[in-house]
Amino acid sequence: MNRDLLGIRQLSQAQITDLLHRSDGYFRHLDSTEPFPDYRLLHGRTIANLFFENSTRTRTSFELAEKRLGATSISLSMQTSSLTKGESLIDTINVICAMKVDCIVVRHSSSGVPQLLRNNLPPHIRIINAGDGAHEHPTQALLDAATLLEQLGSLKGKRIFIVGDISHSRVARSNMLLLKMLGAEITLVGPETLLPKYVEEVFDVRVRTTIGDSLHKADAVIALRIQQERQSRSYFPNLSDFRLRYGLTPIQLSDTKAFILHPGPVNRSVELDDEVVDSEKSLILRQVRRGVAIRMAVLEWLFEV
Amino acid sequence: MNRDLLGIRQLSQAQITDLLHRSDGYFRHLDSTEPFPDYRLLHGRTIANLFFENSTRTRTSFELAEKRLGATSISLSMQTSSLTKGESLIDTINVICAMKVDCIVVRHSSSGVPQLLRNNLPPHIRIINAGDGAHEHPTQALLDAATLLEQLGSLKGKRIFIVGDISHSRVARSNMLLLKMLGAEITLVGPETLLPKYVEEVFDVRVRTTIGDSLHKADAVIALRIQQERQSRSYFPNLSDFRLRYGLTPIQLSDTKAFILHPGPVNRSVELDDEVVDSEKSLILRQVRRGVAIRMAVLEWLFEV
Amino acid sequence: MNRDLLGIRQLSQAQITDLLHRSDGYFRHLDSTEPFPDYRLLHGRTIANLFFENSTRTRTSFELAEKRLGATSISLSMQTSSLTKGESLIDTINVICAMKVDCIVVRHSSSGVPQLLRNNLPPHIRIINAGDGAHEHPTQALLDAATLLEQLGSLKGKRIFIVGDISHSRVARSNMLLLKMLGAEITLVGPETLLPKYVEEVFDVRVRTTIGDSLHKADAVIALRIQQERQSRSYFPNLSDFRLRYGLTPIQLSDTKAFILHPGPVNRSVELDDEVVDSEKSLILRQVRRGVAIRMAVLEWLFEV
Repeated sequence: MNRDLLGIRQLSQAQITDLLHRSDGYFRHLDSTEPFPDYRLLHGRTIANLFFENSTRTRTSFELAEKRLGATSISLSMQTSSLTKGESLIDTINVICAMKVDCIVVRHSSSGVPQLLRNNLPPHIRIINAGDGAHEHPTQALLDAATLLEQLGSLKGKRIFIVGDISHSRVARSNMLLLKMLGAEITLVGPETLLPKYVEEVFDVRVRTTIGDSLHKADAVIALRIQQERQSRSYFPNLSDFRLRYGLTPIQLSDTKAFILHPGPVNRSVELDDEVVDSEKSLILRQVRRGVAIRMAVLEWLFEV
Repeated sequence: MNRDLLGIRQLSQAQITDLLHRSDGYFRHLDSTEPFPDYRLLHGRTIANLFFENSTRTRTSFELAEKRLGATSISLSMQTSSLTKGESLIDTINVICAMKVDCIVVRHSSSGVPQLLRNNLPPHIRIINAGDGAHEHPTQALLDAATLLEQLGSLKGKRIFIVGDISHSRVARSNMLLLKMLGAEITLVGPETLLPKYVEEVFDVRVRTTIGDSLHKADAVIALRIQQERQSRSYFPNLSDFRLRYGLTPIQLSDTKAFILHPGPVNRSVELDDEVVDSEKSLILRQVRRGVAIRMAVLEWLFEV
Repeated sequence: MNRDLLGIRQLSQAQITDLLHRSDGYFRHLDSTEPFPDYRLLHGRTIANLFFENSTRTRTSFELAEKRLGATSISLSMQTSSLTKGESLIDTINVICAMKVDCIVVRHSSSGVPQLLRNNLPPHIRIINAGDGAHEHPTQALLDAATLLEQLGSLKGKRIFIVGDISHSRVARSNMLLLKMLGAEITLVGPETLLPKYVEEVFDVRVRTTIGDSLHKADAVIALRIQQERQSRSYFPNLSDFRLRYGLTPIQLSDTKAFILHPGPVNRSVELDDEVVDSEKSLILRQVRRGVAIRMAVLEWLFEV
């Protein structure tokens, strides 16, 4: 049977451990200043990156992962493609696949598009969800877990805070699922307007509407990006107000041993103050590096069968 | 002497048979789910794709053909290039060629641009016409022929209908030339306003202004895309009217054994109804796959000398 | 210690000679119609081309240099990147580097950006200035020198005129520095409004405000591009007036043995008349070819240590 990565929810504990473990070897090479070794695992394979939402950093991370495994990597700007000539999404992607594409990496503003592709594309074509609406972003959750494991050894019983716009965040959703599976205790922090209803029960997490002095108990804080483009109306008065209540400042950092993560790009002085971004507790650039390693591991895993 | 592919008109019967034959081996690998084999035929060669008209699918097809033969492939978006700084077409392309480019793949809205390049570029630089105005689109005709041959064995005496906007279609023009050479009988179907004058005599084809019940005699139908962008005035009342008279519907399909081809992207419910696009008679995705194989064959042939 | 190419000013005479010499071997292969040989010098290395100012020709020249040395080459259009999401320049580039990028090629409209990156990026990341504001464009000066040396053997005592908008030209600035080091005598020609103050003293060059009949003494003329986009106000009445006083016409060409260079893209009938661009004295396409060779030599040199 074929493999896909549509979401964290599809993965077993063993598969997660396996993926994290596979990524370690790649990470060591990424962390070195030596030339990257010559992997030819995906030689003869073509991978198409279809980003319906623009994201230079995630697209580049996938492209580099693909090329470093020896694949032929093509990236199609789906804004300027045949879609603008009135062709349907499925027709366009079927055409691309007919050119012998072996794997589709897709990002889309609508939740469920990766599953839609899975239901409509030939079964031998692997699909990776690179972020769909407010649903899932599984490689981000995997890279966050790998980054945390590097520092904390194990996540069992570790207290991880996820702060910001929880409702609209596929990063929060995938992270809740994954970090819980690895044994972490999750606390969500955000304005009531940005916390999904019944989230405590559904995901078995704690919820707070202010940070206050709660961070001294945290092992790590994942600050989410305020994405005004994905909000149809205003959920908090303004950015200064958000920063006052949910932004991480040097004062809050002094109070905690917690490591700081952020999926990027950071709005400096909103989610994180300069001193926090640039502090020794900030793992933001480690996350980016882990991201390439995780994507290599996922590709290796998809093409193993 | 150097080789180019400026149009079907330049090719001999033997050369066409040769190109179609060469493409078969590549097609078999494209039609497999195994890794594509490691061709290094164009290793050390650089091919520049210059698309002055946007076409994600054709450009991607050429890029993949080039990369899978081991070439260095560069694609320049000619809308955002130095042309916008006031440089002439020939100057821009001469600069690109000076960087040691061995082959130019060009698409342009003006007929004759590939020939213009041939007259002005150094003789060792191969030129492939990827579509020029309403003139020719030779690789499309070759891929259509290869797709038809896969199903029909031979085109001798086979009845092929080309339906739609004949006047503005380089696809129709190249196909008429090529399919006639392979022995097919061509019938053009379209509104009088979209049929070139004297086309029956010049190309030795039949002409009809309605489909009616004529399809029961057809072995294949090539439906052309309605390209409103290339029409300076209106040639038919509206798209619904066009569909009524020239669109292929399930009723017409039930009446015929004909295979259905379309160069894409399809305007669903205009040229072809959903049931026609998705029927077993539809060869549209086979055409796309044949396209990559044909372009590999053309490149192999150009660099043989 | 790590190497960078931030400007001509950082290079010693020995280093310049070394770079020019290294480029010769690459140039011979570029000047041949045979396949380019298989260099794997930069295999496993990733080079990111960050062009904040659009330049198809320079970007393509770097990309081809990188690929032909076996590097993984990525080009990010910095207009559509995360910068538009409010991220800072340094944050964006740090993220790219965290994906294991070994070298940044940067073009920016602001002088000093390559030095800014040097001050902020990890030391093992090599930086190449591909043009910063009106400051420097070192690979252009090196390719101009290589082109001139091919024709003139040595630049010692050779008279080289640089004509046009000197004040806004990083090409002029880098060329003055480099050609002087190689022993040439430089004459700058341009309207007083486009000549920097005290330039004669600072750079030890001659200055003229008209061409007149001075060209009969020249060994080469480097005509600069009139870049109206980089001029905040008008420095001369209009383009016809500029052409009359500073444009090179067949009459002026008949008066001299000088070779003609231009960094491109040429405004025909402004800086150079058609007969001059297309004359046998024009080295414009040789410059383009030398450009790829110089960039390969620079990359080889940067990664030697």
